[in-house]
Amino acid sequence: MQSNILRIIPLGGLGEVGRNMMVYEYDGEILVVDAGLMFPENDMLGIDYIIPDLTYLTQHRSQVRGIVITHGHEDHIGAIHHLLNEVQAPIFATPLTRGLLEVKLGRNGLGAKADLRTVQAGETVEIGPFKVEFYHVCHSIPDGVGLGIHTPAGLIVHSGDYKFDHTPVDGKPSDYNRLAGYSQQGVLALLADSTNAERPGWTPSEKVVEAAFENVFSKAPGRIIIASFASLISRMQQVANAAERHNRKLAFVGSSMIDNMKMARKLGYLEIPDTLLVPIDQALNMPDDQVVIMCTGSQGEPTSILGRLSTGTNRLFDIEAGDTVVLSSHPIPGNEENVYRVVNRLFQQGADVIYESIAPVHVSGHASQEEMKLLLHLTRPRYFIPIHGELRQLKRHARLAQEIGIAAENIQVIENGQIIEFVDGEMRISDERTPAQYVFVDGSGVGDVDPEVMREREALSRDGVVMVNLTMSREFNAVVYEPEIVTRGFILPREGDELLNNARREIIQSASRANGNVRRVVEDRVREFIYGETRRRPMVFVNINRAI
Amino acid sequence: MQSNILRIIPLGGLGEVGRNMMVYEYDGEILVVDAGLMFPENDMLGIDYIIPDLTYLTQHRSQVRGIVITHGHEDHIGAIHHLLNEVQAPIFATPLTRGLLEVKLGRNGLGAKADLRTVQAGETVEIGPFKVEFYHVCHSIPDGVGLGIHTPAGLIVHSGDYKFDHTPVDGKPSDYNRLAGYSQQGVLALLADSTNAERPGWTPSEKVVEAAFENVFSKAPGRIIIASFASLISRMQQVANAAERHNRKLAFVGSSMIDNMKMARKLGYLEIPDTLLVPIDQALNMPDDQVVIMCTGSQGEPTSILGRLSTGTNRLFDIEAGDTVVLSSHPIPGNEENVYRVVNRLFQQGADVIYESIAPVHVSGHASQEEMKLLLHLTRPRYFIPIHGELRQLKRHARLAQEIGIAAENIQVIENGQIIEFVDGEMRISDERTPAQYVFVDGSGVGDVDPEVMREREALSRDGVVMVNLTMSREFNAVVYEPEIVTRGFILPREGDELLNNARREIIQSASRANGNVRRVVEDRVREFIYGETRRRPMVFVNINRAI
Repeated sequence: MQSNILRIIPLGGLGEVGRNMMVYEYDGEILVVDAGLMFPENDMLGIDYIIPDLTYLTQHRSQVRGIVITHGHEDHIGAIHHLLNEVQAPIFATPLTRGLLEVKLGRNGLGAKADLRTVQAGETVEIGPFKVEFYHVCHSIPDGVGLGIHTPAGLIVHSGDYKFDHTPVDGKPSDYNRLAGYSQQGVLALLADSTNAERPGWTPSEKVVEAAFENVFSKAPGRIIIASFASLISRMQQVANAAERHNRKLAFVGSSMIDNMKMARKLGYLEIPDTLLVPIDQALNMPDDQVVIMCTGSQGEPTSILGRLSTGTNRLFDIEAGDTVVLSSHPIPGNEENVYRVVNRLFQQGADVIYESIAPVHVSGHASQEEMKLLLHLTRPRYFIPIHGELRQLKRHARLAQEIGIAAENIQVIENGQIIEFVDGEMRISDERTPAQYVFVDGSGVGDVDPEVMREREALSRDGVVMVNLTMSREFNAVVYEPEIVTRGFILPREGDELLNNARREIIQSASRANGNVRRVVEDRVREFIYGETRRRPMVFVNINRAI
Repeated sequence: MQSNILRIIPLGGLGEVGRNMMVYEYDGEILVVDAGLMFPENDMLGIDYIIPDLTYLTQHRSQVRGIVITHGHEDHIGAIHHLLNEVQAPIFATPLTRGLLEVKLGRNGLGAKADLRTVQAGETVEIGPFKVEFYHVCHSIPDGVGLGIHTPAGLIVHSGDYKFDHTPVDGKPSDYNRLAGYSQQGVLALLADSTNAERPGWTPSEKVVEAAFENVFSKAPGRIIIASFASLISRMQQVANAAERHNRKLAFVGSSMIDNMKMARKLGYLEIPDTLLVPIDQALNMPDDQVVIMCTGSQGEPTSILGRLSTGTNRLFDIEAGDTVVLSSHPIPGNEENVYRVVNRLFQQGADVIYESIAPVHVSGHASQEEMKLLLHLTRPRYFIPIHGELRQLKRHARLAQEIGIAAENIQVIENGQIIEFVDGEMRISDERTPAQYVFVDGSGVGDVDPEVMREREALSRDGVVMVNLTMSREFNAVVYEPEIVTRGFILPREGDELLNNARREIIQSASRANGNVRRVVEDRVREFIYGETRRRPMVFVNINRAI
C-alpha cells in the first residue's frame, strides 16, 4: 500500500441509524473511533441488534493501535465487546464514558481483559501516527467529546454527537474556542453528525426540559413516574433537581438505570443528596404526592417497567388513578407504534400521561441546521463528509454545507465500506471497498442469520407453517393411516377443521396418484389447495413414512 | 328495550386509527355511519387489514334502516363489502363517495347487490326515525360531509373527517352556516374527529401544497414523479394544474389511481384537459423535462410502483439521475420506517427526493386544535364525545373541550363497544357492552386468525422452526436411521452444520433413554439443547415413525 495516504473507512453509521464505527488509517496503522450497535428495524425478525462488519479489522487486527469512544450511548459503545473479541487495543474514553464501558464489559465477561484508559476533554493522546485531541461537546449524555485528529496528512475534525447548548444541565457548553482554533491550524476535513439535518433552526436547550418538569411537578396530584433511557444521566439530574424543589423523594427502578445512576454519582456526574433517594419499596409506602419514580421503558419496550405498567403486569406496583406518567424521550424511528401503544394503555390504566407532543419533556441531543452551519463556519474545513445518519440526512447535510459556501466537489456523501483517501491534501474515493454488511446478533449467534434466514422468518410470520405426516405402504403409493396435519400460525383450529379434513382428502388422492417424488407432489398439492381455499401461503412440509 | 332512548354504539375508530363505524339506534331502528378498515400494525403479522366487529349488526340485521358514508377514504369505506355480506340496507353517499364505493364493490363482486343512493351536501334524508342532513366539509378528498342527525331524542352532529380550509382546492369551504344553524336549534351532542388533537394551531390550507409544487416544478431539471394516495383526488388536481402551468404532460401509473382518476373526471371532481394527459408509454419517450408521472406508493409499500422504483425492480421504467421524486403524503403511523427506506433508496438510485420534512408537499386533511375549538363553539353542544383517534387523542380532544368551557361531566371518552344512551336529554353510559374486537382479514379469511394464531406467527418469526423426523424400531426405543432435521428461519445452513450434528447425537440419546412419551421427551431435549447452544427458541416438532 502506498504510504503518506490517510484513509477513512466507515464501517457503520452511514446510511443508517446506529452502529457508529469509523476507521482512520495512516501508513498501515489504524485508529478506531466508536463501536456502536444498531437497533433492529421492525422487519428484522427475531434480531437482538446489529453490529458493524468487523471483517476489515479482523484482517488487520495487528495494525490497530487504539480505540477511541466519543460518548457512552449504545450506538457508540454497544458493539465494544464484539470488537474486543477480534482486536486487542487500548480504549480511550472520558471518565463517564469509561464507567459505562466498564458496566457493559463487565456484563459481557470482558471486564478484566479490556485495556481502558481515561482521558479528559482538552487532553491529547498519541495513538500510532495519530495525535487525538479530545474537545468537550454537549449532548444528551455528559462527558461527550469531539476529536481533533492530527495526522501527517492533515487535521481531521470528527464531531461525535453534539449540539450547541448554551445552557446545558452540567453548565459546560461545547468547546467553541477549540473548534475555532482548529480552523486557524487549517482543517483538512470535517466529519460531522447529520442526525437532525432535516430540522431547521437550533435544537432547544436542555433547560427547556427543566421548565416542563417544573410545570408537571407543580400540578401532579399524586405520584410522578418518569421514564427515560438508562443512560440519560442529565435527565436524572433534572428529575432530582425538580424532586428536591417540590419536596418529593426519588426512587429509581430497573437494574441498568440503577447501575448507571450509581456509577455517575460515584464519578461526580450526578449530584443527588443521599437524603433525596429512597428505595422503591419505601417510595411505594409514602404519600403519593411525595414521590417521584424514575424508570426505563420510554421506547415502549413491552418487557420494560413502563411497558409492564401499561399492561398491569408489573411486579412491584401498578398504575393508579392520579398518577402522572412522563415519557421523557423521543421515539427512535420505527418505535412510534410501540411508544404510542404504551401511552394509550397508560391512559387506560387511569394515569395522566405527558409526552413530547403534549409538553417539551424531552429535547434532542443533536445539532439542528443552524448549529450544523455554525460548526462548519467554526472549523472552515477544506473537505466535508457528513456522517451519522440515514442517506436522506447525509444528503441534506451536504446540501447545507453547499449553501454556506463549501464547493460541491469538496463534499462527499459516502456509504459504509467506501474508502476515502487523502493524498497530498486532495480527497478521492478509492475503488476498493471493504465489507460493511449488517451483522445480525441473535441470541448468542453473531452473523449466523442472514437475509435468506430472515426471508424464511418473514414467510413463517405471514402465514405460518403446515406440517403433514403421511404413512404410506412400503410397496405401493397407498396411504395407510389418516394423514396427520399440524399447523402453527396458520388458522384457528376451530375454523380450520373442515379445511384440514378436505386437505386430508387431497393429500390421500395426490399421494396415491403420484409418479416420481411423492413428497414434492403432495407438498405442491397442499400448497395449491390451501391457497385456493384461503389465499394464504403457509410453509408446507410433508414427511413420508413407509409402513410395512 | 326501553323506548325513547337514543343509543350510540361505536364499533370502530375509538382508541385506534381506522375502521370507523358508528351505530345510532332509536326505538330499535338502526343507522350505520361509515364502514372503514384499519391497516395492520407492524406486529399484526400476515394480516391484510382489520374490520369492525359486526356481531351487533348481524344480531340486529333486520333493524338496520340505512348506511351513511361520510367520504371515500379506506378508513371509512374499506369494510363496506364485509358489512353488506351481513346487512341489507340502502347506502347513502355523495356522488364522488358513491363512485369510490362502486369501484370498491365492483372489485369485490358486490356491484349489483348494493342499493346505492346519491345525496348532495345540503340535502336531508329520512332513514327510519333519523333525519340525516348532509353538510359539506373540507378534507383531503372532495365531497366529504358531516352529518346533522335529527332524532326524536335531539340533534346529534357527527363531524366526519374535516378541516376548516379557507382556500380549498375545489373552492368549497366547510359549511360554517349550517354548523352555526345547528347551535340555534340546540345540539344535544357533538361527535368529532380527534386525529390531530395533539396539534396546536390550525392545519395549513391545501393552498400551501400548490406553492410547494410550484417551487418543485420550476427547479426540476428532468422528470417529476409524484407519489400519493390513490384516493387523493385534490392532489391529482394540484399536480395537473402545476403540469399545465409548466408545460409538462401528465401520466398516471397504477390501476387503482387510474380507476379513481377516471371516475373523478367523469363525475366532474377532477378537471384535467384531455390534451394534458398522456399514457405512460408515451410519457417515457418524451423529453424528461416535459413529463410528470403520478403514481402510488407514498407509504413505502414495497410492492407499489414507488417501492419498486426504489429497488430498481419496476417493470416499465427506472429512476435516472435528474429525476425529482415527490412524496406527497404523511407516513401513516407505523409506516415511518418503510417510507424513509424508500426515500433513502430513491436517493441511492440517483433521484432528488422531496418529502414532507424537506418542503410542504403535503398537508393534513384533519382539523388541528384551534379548528376543533371552532367546531365546538359553532355547534355549542350540550354533550361532547370525541371520536376517530387513539385514546391519547380522544383524551386530548376532551381536554380541549373542557378548556373552552364544556363541563367535564358532559364529556365522555369511550371505547369501541361501549354504549352511550340519551334518555330525557341526559347522557349516560350503559352497563351493557357489545363485542368490538379486532377482526383480522387474512387472504380470504375473516376472523379465522386470532391473537393466539398471531402469537404463533410471532414465535415463528422470532426464531423459526426446527422439524425432526425420527425413525425408531417398532419394539425398542432405538433410533434406526440418522434423524432428519429440517430448519427454516433458524440458522444459516453453513453455520448450523455442527450444531445440527450435535443435536442429532442428543436426539438419539434422549430417544433411546425415554420413558413414556418419546416425542415429548425428544422435543424438550432439542429445545433445551438449542437454547443452550444458541439462546434461541425455535418452534420444535418431532415426528416419530416406527420401523419394522
